[in-house]
Amino acid sequence: MQGIKEQVEKLSLVLQTRRLSVVTAESCTGGGIARILTDEPGASSWFERGFVTYSNLSKQQMLDVPEALIEEHGAVSEEVVLAMARGALRHSNGDVSVAVSGVAGPDGGSPEKPVGTVWIAWGLGAEHTEAQRFHFPGGRDVVRSQAIRAALEGLNARLG
Amino acid sequence: MQGIKEQVEKLSLVLQTRRLSVVTAESCTGGGIARILTDEPGASSWFERGFVTYSNLSKQQMLDVPEALIEEHGAVSEEVVLAMARGALRHSNGDVSVAVSGVAGPDGGSPEKPVGTVWIAWGLGAEHTEAQRFHFPGGRDVVRSQAIRAALEGLNARLG
Repeated sequence: MQGIKEQVEKLSLVLQTRRLSVVTAESCTGGGIARILTDEPGASSWFERGFVTYSNLSKQQMLDVPEALIEEHGAVSEEVVLAMARGALRHSNGDVSVAVSGVAGPDGGSPEKPVGTVWIAWGLGAEHTEAQRFHFPGGRDVVRSQAIRAALEGLNARLG
Repeated sequence: MQGIKEQVEKLSLVLQTRRLSVVTAESCTGGGIARILTDEPGASSWFERGFVTYSNLSKQQMLDVPEALIEEHGAVSEEVVLAMARGALRHSNGDVSVAVSGVAGPDGGSPEKPVGTVWIAWGLGAEHTEAQRFHFPGGRDVVRSQAIRAALEGLNARLG
């Protein structure tokens, strides 16, 4: 398992080689994926924009996630994270997208979705999205960094 | 001069006390302000959403920054960063906003706007925006962290 910086460098190379650009849609990571991607010099050639959709309203307004989907499944769900990944592609010029929604804690956990539950989705085109559920042990900071790493690792695995 | 974490804690307290929420519009900091704000547990009560407008097109599409303004003054300018701060308020439920556009380097500098030039704007209501020009010495990482710190410090100074 590689560190976050190695994942970013690998992704940067793949995106440049394949002439693709990436967009991000982040809830619990709060901009952390965008931040680490743009740490790379020259990121503007493959990073287009990012959506930090922290509130439920912002998921609806910025990414067209249907309100009914959030009400039925909750913001931390496969359905919502897939809608976020699709919405990010529709509302940008990006070719691929990554979306994250999770319970970073310390509050917000439930028996069904305890703290550390994170859904990540990857948008690889309008008709091709995939999602995966994770559970990261540890406190808020650890959950958030693990989610960032898993998001990048998953994108690399699907593009590599 | 306080560190970034102290600025975030101070801001979190002020926003909670005054029942205000903040939105971010970031170019060169690439989501770093949103990321550090949402490091705080319970940030969802005062952080609403963030716009990572890295490309010029995203500044136009997400924040309604006029294309002509970018062409005339460049993306790193008082005019554009003020438009970003206003756009962030118009396109959200946030009460206050902070916007950043700068040359983090290593490329993109010019004699007029060398690497380290950063414009920051604060939106304190639809009719009240202020901007300030900074020049931070150092490499990309240092410029970006200094910009994040100055953005938070400036917001605290204006709200405190």
